Amino acid sequence: MYDTSEAKKIAEKRALDAADQEIIVKTIEDGVETAWDRLECQQPQCGFGQLGVCCNRCTMGPCRIEPFGKKPDRGVCGATADLIVARNMLDDLSTGAAAHSDHGREVLEVLLETAEGKSQGYQITDEEKLKSIAEEYGIKTEGRQKEAVAEDLARAMLEEYGTLKNSIQLVERAPEKTKQLWKDAGIYPRSVDREIVESMHRIHMGVGADYVNILLHAMRTSLSDGWGGSMMATEGSDILFGTPTPVTSWANLGTLSHDKVNVVLHGHNPVLSEMIVKAAEDPELIKYAEEMGAKGINLVGMCCTGNELLMRHGIPIAGNMLDQELAIATGSVEVMVIDYQCIFPSITHTAGCYHTKVISTSEKSKVQGATYKEFHPETGLDTAKEIVRAAIENYPNRNHGRVKIPSKPIQLMAGFSEEAIRKALGGTYKPLIDAIVAGSIKGVVGIVGCNNPKIRHDYGHITLAKELIKRDILVVETGCAAIASGKAGLLVPEAADLAGDGLKAVCNSLGIPPVLHMGSCVDCSRILVLAAHVADELGVGIGDLPLGGAAPEWYSQKAVSIGTYFVSSGVYTVLGIPPKIFGSPNVLKLLAVTLKDVVNASFAVEPDPVLAADLLEAEIERKRTALGI
Amino acid sequence: MYDTSEAKKIAEKRALDAADQEIIVKTIEDGVETAWDRLECQQPQCGFGQLGVCCNRCTMGPCRIEPFGKKPDRGVCGATADLIVARNMLDDLSTGAAAHSDHGREVLEVLLETAEGKSQGYQITDEEKLKSIAEEYGIKTEGRQKEAVAEDLARAMLEEYGTLKNSIQLVERAPEKTKQLWKDAGIYPRSVDREIVESMHRIHMGVGADYVNILLHAMRTSLSDGWGGSMMATEGSDILFGTPTPVTSWANLGTLSHDKVNVVLHGHNPVLSEMIVKAAEDPELIKYAEEMGAKGINLVGMCCTGNELLMRHGIPIAGNMLDQELAIATGSVEVMVIDYQCIFPSITHTAGCYHTKVISTSEKSKVQGATYKEFHPETGLDTAKEIVRAAIENYPNRNHGRVKIPSKPIQLMAGFSEEAIRKALGGTYKPLIDAIVAGSIKGVVGIVGCNNPKIRHDYGHITLAKELIKRDILVVETGCAAIASGKAGLLVPEAADLAGDGLKAVCNSLGIPPVLHMGSCVDCSRILVLAAHVADELGVGIGDLPLGGAAPEWYSQKAVSIGTYFVSSGVYTVLGIPPKIFGSPNVLKLLAVTLKDVVNASFAVEPDPVLAADLLEAEIERKRTALGI
Repeated sequence: MYDTSEAKKIAEKRALDAADQEIIVKTIEDGVETAWDRLECQQPQCGFGQLGVCCNRCTMGPCRIEPFGKKPDRGVCGATADLIVARNMLDDLSTGAAAHSDHGREVLEVLLETAEGKSQGYQITDEEKLKSIAEEYGIKTEGRQKEAVAEDLARAMLEEYGTLKNSIQLVERAPEKTKQLWKDAGIYPRSVDREIVESMHRIHMGVGADYVNILLHAMRTSLSDGWGGSMMATEGSDILFGTPTPVTSWANLGTLSHDKVNVVLHGHNPVLSEMIVKAAEDPELIKYAEEMGAKGINLVGMCCTGNELLMRHGIPIAGNMLDQELAIATGSVEVMVIDYQCIFPSITHTAGCYHTKVISTSEKSKVQGATYKEFHPETGLDTAKEIVRAAIENYPNRNHGRVKIPSKPIQLMAGFSEEAIRKALGGTYKPLIDAIVAGSIKGVVGIVGCNNPKIRHDYGHITLAKELIKRDILVVETGCAAIASGKAGLLVPEAADLAGDGLKAVCNSLGIPPVLHMGSCVDCSRILVLAAHVADELGVGIGDLPLGGAAPEWYSQKAVSIGTYFVSSGVYTVLGIPPKIFGSPNVLKLLAVTLKDVVNASFAVEPDPVLAADLLEAEIERKRTALGI
Repeated sequence: MYDTSEAKKIAEKRALDAADQEIIVKTIEDGVETAWDRLECQQPQCGFGQLGVCCNRCTMGPCRIEPFGKKPDRGVCGATADLIVARNMLDDLSTGAAAHSDHGREVLEVLLETAEGKSQGYQITDEEKLKSIAEEYGIKTEGRQKEAVAEDLARAMLEEYGTLKNSIQLVERAPEKTKQLWKDAGIYPRSVDREIVESMHRIHMGVGADYVNILLHAMRTSLSDGWGGSMMATEGSDILFGTPTPVTSWANLGTLSHDKVNVVLHGHNPVLSEMIVKAAEDPELIKYAEEMGAKGINLVGMCCTGNELLMRHGIPIAGNMLDQELAIATGSVEVMVIDYQCIFPSITHTAGCYHTKVISTSEKSKVQGATYKEFHPETGLDTAKEIVRAAIENYPNRNHGRVKIPSKPIQLMAGFSEEAIRKALGGTYKPLIDAIVAGSIKGVVGIVGCNNPKIRHDYGHITLAKELIKRDILVVETGCAAIASGKAGLLVPEAADLAGDGLKAVCNSLGIPPVLHMGSCVDCSRILVLAAHVADELGVGIGDLPLGGAAPEWYSQKAVSIGTYFVSSGVYTVLGIPPKIFGSPNVLKLLAVTLKDVVNASFAVEPDPVLAADLLEAEIERKRTALGI
């Protein structure tokens, strides 16, 4: 269909990373469909949908509003563009908050079962964090077994998913001034599940009818995610598997091995993959792999399950969201293990073109054509061993003649949990604050979020990160953004050479990269905790700090929730992909302007990452000026 | 724009009821926009949306599947039509389940505050029901104050919204055989909020990827509504306000008064409206109304708040969902009080054409242009009095020259709670079972659900109800269906003349109508309890009984949940409006055929109510044959 030079041109347009480009060419040559092809096939996409003015919630519809002031200006129920846009946004945001929070719930259930001695292969790894969070919850720790404390803590956290207690302890971590803003605006979050369910109630026809009111509840729901469900997912995982500390590893599709059994761990929840890491160290299984002709077992991560394993164990990371099909297209993957979130529903279709087996592990994310091995904590390690065994047994099916693995994985440093950053600074944020006051670091920006085939793969993330560090703005990252930086070589101390003089000096003196990998999507909660600590040291709100957020390539509803809890917490946030709100100038104005008066932060949309850096820098300067620095 | 004869023709096309037609003519003459006008203005409606094959969940989209087997056959993420249709349905269903369950949560919170002595104007009215449900929950009742028992019960029920307990006591009311089917299918519901939040997680890109799996969870979520949130709403309201017993009252727009202060109580949750009923009896306020030139205060209900008040207090009911604009257009409504659900977001726009004040009372459903009086149980009665006072003070603004009230309200009998039906039968279902076995009653059909301007107002409900009773099938109703029957005169014992000889004889001997009004939408749970009792007496599952369900004019996401918990519980259900699933033959087959093998019931779609009666009768005959009767 395409000759190689044409394929190369297409690949260059599709992705920034050379290793990715190499395999995109292979997908074209192999005739394997990818997300980029499907996006082309979907053109032109519905304009009403893109503007957010289509409503298909009830069977009086589907309705759509004429976006240029003509008729129809109301849906059958009487909803205006403002309401339709706001309801759609709240639906999306709730989907994202639900994804994070339900993930948190599962981690806590594993923590509870581990505390009760019912799980297999798990243990309480970070006793210090367990103790410190238990104390936040008012749970007695003195002279008690860690299991007893963990049981109480898991129950206390799970209780906050319910209605009776109706408050979330970790929300108390936010600075006083920030919490006061939430109280004043009526968006102080109550329980994790309640806000989400109430969101769904509010988007029913004839409930929420005022777009402002709907969006305020969206903010509340996002806070119950960021300071609730997501934060519990992070903290629970740290207690079970350890709080990350700096670690060196490798990134890109070149982490796949030519002669070992390749197992790709894809998804978001590490509870099973942690057991696969253990299983892959089992001498019997390593021996079995050798018997099957391989030189060992090579685990690589993908997306946020990959980030979780990278952060805690230095497992190499093969790529981010748009790499999932490419990994399979290398022809070298024996098994792709999926838990949930951001896994293309067609992934088994892709795997069907090669020898790869997709193994799904969660009842929530069964996939047609996948092998299903349901995860239960009681049998976690057994299931993990079964999966590794299945991968080994698939190795002889690899067609080495069809394998292409890019040659150069890129080195990276990860593991910058909030605690690790604080430790690197000497136990307090004072050095960071001093550097900010002195102006050697102008501010901090969190770049987070996904990939989206509408933008050249990783281009938004990398261009923005480079622009920011050049301007002496420290970058912290999670999710697909952090993986992009790993592939691009920005996560090593040497990348400080790309930074401005001020930031470069700070990085060199601390031996840290100018872009810090803080973890998975739920670990955006680590950024909130960092911001709260810095604000507390200065006695201000998060909204007063010279911080920014960006999601240059976001696609997912989780990103809607993350962006909204960033802004609600006081962090100005620039989106690289337009959200579906442009059909309502009122919603747009509220989110981009009015919110500054409510939470001292707002959204902006800027597809060009260089211009996005300008916006972020200007906002950081505004906050610096207001702080008198 | 139209002359009167033309307007009359339009009105006849739009509505079945003569009183409604009269006011529809007035809306046309007054130039007031209604839902029917907006539906016309929305033509043609999007075909992709109607088929359910449009997905606008993430910003890789909007995507749509070509419905005739051509490209695009997958969304950008790789989702097929099957998956897109199933995810959309689960989103809708969860919205409906959330609406019911969040309503239940609020009732339980009022019950808790009442038990704690913190609410104003509330009391525990049905001590017998309190005691009996407390015993179901294993709460000690012997020798305890009712408030203490109520506090324990409210907490126990609210606990079931959370994750820790992870089971719902009222689900145990289902027959053993039915529960076993749920266990076998993996759809036994856990907690109320959890299922909804997990639904939202499952519809995130890259989680649920198998339409079968998504739809199974939809069934589980619906069961957590029907046997959970909705049932708790019903039972909590009964404990607080009394379990309904047969009561006589009036229906249609003629219940509005020419010379009294008209207050329309619209929405779904009776917690505030119950206080308004009290407030309207206050001699001071009655005197005040007289001082303002009125002959008194006339409360009328609308939609399900109306049903709640009709069932328990015999408050007349002005109409169902499509009557909300018509009530205002009579020019006689001083105040329309809204709580939430099914209130047109443009209702203040309609009210703006007359003197009517819309008073919104829930933080969840603020409406631009409405007066906002936030409801809190601690000040419930005070707020209710303020609202009545505001209505009285608006009476002098009524322009009597612009008032048109239809002349003849229709008499009705309501109040058929499950307990009341059982009592009417002599305390046991044996007489009903005997009548069914003897064939004088062939079976029972629940007609439920909304109005939808796509079908002539009330035509679906009334035609189906008449067809069924003619065929000796007893009809039980809730929601807008029951109000339609009230307006059409089917809710009086004399309507038995329209029934077949067998049913007529039974009705005459018991003095009951052939169509029984069982309450509001959440009171569909009463139908489940009735079915469970009958099944238990026979030692079978609900799916074995000669029952049927129908939603001839549904529009709402709540109806998706109700329909699904009916089918999941074993009740064959016919929809008069096509759900948005026809873009996936696989989903269609699953819901219309395969489910019979899972839960012994399925969905059907039949817009013609006479043909729908044929389907229901055939299914009842099938079940009768299987039972050997």
